[in-house]
Amino acid sequence: MLLGITTVSAKDSAMAGEGEKGDCIGWAARDASGVLSPYKFNRRSLGNDDVFIKITHCGVCYADVIWTRNQHHDSNYPLVPGHEIVGVITEAGASVTCFKTGDLVGVGTYVNSCRECEYCNAYTEHHCAKGATRTFNSIDIDGTFTKGGYSSYIVVHQRYCFLIPEGYPPAMAAPLLCAGITVYSPMKRYHMNQPGKSLGVIGLGGLGHMAVKFAKSFGLNVTVFSTSASKQEEALKILGADKFVISSDKQQMQSLTKSLDFIIDTASGKHPVDAYVSILKPHGVLVIVGAIGEVKLQSLDLIYGSKAIAASAVGGTKDIQEMIGFCAANKIYPQIETIQIQDINEALDRLVNRDVKYRFVIDIENSLK
Amino acid sequence: MLLGITTVSAKDSAMAGEGEKGDCIGWAARDASGVLSPYKFNRRSLGNDDVFIKITHCGVCYADVIWTRNQHHDSNYPLVPGHEIVGVITEAGASVTCFKTGDLVGVGTYVNSCRECEYCNAYTEHHCAKGATRTFNSIDIDGTFTKGGYSSYIVVHQRYCFLIPEGYPPAMAAPLLCAGITVYSPMKRYHMNQPGKSLGVIGLGGLGHMAVKFAKSFGLNVTVFSTSASKQEEALKILGADKFVISSDKQQMQSLTKSLDFIIDTASGKHPVDAYVSILKPHGVLVIVGAIGEVKLQSLDLIYGSKAIAASAVGGTKDIQEMIGFCAANKIYPQIETIQIQDINEALDRLVNRDVKYRFVIDIENSLK
Repeated sequence: MLLGITTVSAKDSAMAGEGEKGDCIGWAARDASGVLSPYKFNRRSLGNDDVFIKITHCGVCYADVIWTRNQHHDSNYPLVPGHEIVGVITEAGASVTCFKTGDLVGVGTYVNSCRECEYCNAYTEHHCAKGATRTFNSIDIDGTFTKGGYSSYIVVHQRYCFLIPEGYPPAMAAPLLCAGITVYSPMKRYHMNQPGKSLGVIGLGGLGHMAVKFAKSFGLNVTVFSTSASKQEEALKILGADKFVISSDKQQMQSLTKSLDFIIDTASGKHPVDAYVSILKPHGVLVIVGAIGEVKLQSLDLIYGSKAIAASAVGGTKDIQEMIGFCAANKIYPQIETIQIQDINEALDRLVNRDVKYRFVIDIENSLK
Repeated sequence: MLLGITTVSAKDSAMAGEGEKGDCIGWAARDASGVLSPYKFNRRSLGNDDVFIKITHCGVCYADVIWTRNQHHDSNYPLVPGHEIVGVITEAGASVTCFKTGDLVGVGTYVNSCRECEYCNAYTEHHCAKGATRTFNSIDIDGTFTKGGYSSYIVVHQRYCFLIPEGYPPAMAAPLLCAGITVYSPMKRYHMNQPGKSLGVIGLGGLGHMAVKFAKSFGLNVTVFSTSASKQEEALKILGADKFVISSDKQQMQSLTKSLDFIIDTASGKHPVDAYVSILKPHGVLVIVGAIGEVKLQSLDLIYGSKAIAASAVGGTKDIQEMIGFCAANKIYPQIETIQIQDINEALDRLVNRDVKYRFVIDIENSLK
């Protein structure tokens, strides 16, 4: 969900010739109210390494709330959000070798990086030494602010596009591009893909429900921790988790002491993690993927048991392509609620109120005209 | 230095027939003053899997201060400290297959475990589900409190003994058994043995100086962080570190932002780690091996950069034997100051005042008679 970015100095948007006209139709927020409305603009012209993608679907991530509402105090308006993009390539630059016209592809949370530094060379472009270019609200190579997937098309360098295998439902592919990779990447890095091991998943939203799906596919025993009893049946019966725990139930929490190999904390919003650390087995790892405020715990609680607290932001391009392939091969599909672009303001409010199972996906193709 | 232990209920020491007589000569603390004086006691008789070790050397660890002075409020007196033990096997039980009479062996921070649980089966006996038996101040199988290496001999199950290769100086082998493994184990676990990578070492004491030595042997570029400028020359010229930084120098600290792959924090005593986290490169790991009080940092500081805070306590038996072999093969020797047992009280005071380069080792063989 979160992508580490080097701060960039914003050019005056007027310089880049932005206006209320253009051939790309999008929905933009105009100010910190975050209310989205139709907005026309131009995309940069197709470069040799770029593909032109006619967008069919875009997932709705909490990041869209954060930046349309200027919660990080760095939003540039008009702001077109959306970084879980799926669409069809309708044109490819002269040097494009990875894709051809007609391919269904995804674009995630970043659309550029230096491609020269040690992080880019290691395919961890999201940690690019010069700062990756976010899919929206970043400075693009032509000096304009990048605009996201709540729009009719996008022009992207081929490196930051990912093939969606034939047969994978395009709408369901959208959440993989941010929610999916955000949990898949640390699950791979911290070796959570060992059958028979146990994983706790804190929070059952867009990220958490994907973590459960990956975990079951990896052969893990999964315990879901939630503040809301209403998610129990869904967690156990629909998602296939093995156990459901209300995190406020101290007795149940204590009964789990030293019982889990891994925990992935997908709950955003401030909350303590020390109770979860004590649930980790020796050598256990707790991975934080949401902004949870301050992390505070006693060093001895980590030392006794040789435990670790890790954190993770999205993933590199190789991992993203691997994850999409894994989902296709193992029939892992996000649970989505498809909406029309005209319903986006209501959807963002519902997202804030956690009223979604588990990811909104905008049917751009049929509603943005 | 620190070993996670399940709390044990202490038997009344009188039950176990302890007294001021016996054939094992040691030095014990009698109360929380921590002052050590001669003390005679009996060891348990040799079991089939036990070896009888005539102790020649014992290293002085900060744990000896903690428990002789009852700083963790769980000390049982008389208390014979010492868990960096080196000695010669003079007798072996009928089932002992790993060692023979005359072998030079080491004993570390624990002398028993269940040998049945998943942690013992994985050779991480220090995390034994039933609690490892510490080398001193734990309950031994005969019901007495274990007594450490400030003594003339010890009886230990063969699994918790480690062969010191011929030619390795016995006095120098002693600090490997706690200080050495405490840094070696996480350095291996977190893949710090990749030539060309960079490591920061916080604190230059018994643990820190071993971390520098291992790191240079692994081919790492090493930066030492210390509060004391007096350690600069030693760090660079004697230990071979590449860079020395006074950690209170904010400007120098800031100039190191995102520059190190790994950091190992060997400094004990409360101190913040957030400045060090910002020095880690993306995907960097900071490992805490000393009790540093509360760990407090912003989740976003970990998320942006996908970083991790890990902690570690000593290591398992396989790792210890591997580490000793690595030291012998690569001529890695701790820097020690040899003392007589009669000087131990002064030495413990000097250790508290950090006045040692870098580990005291008691010449048990020649001074404890």
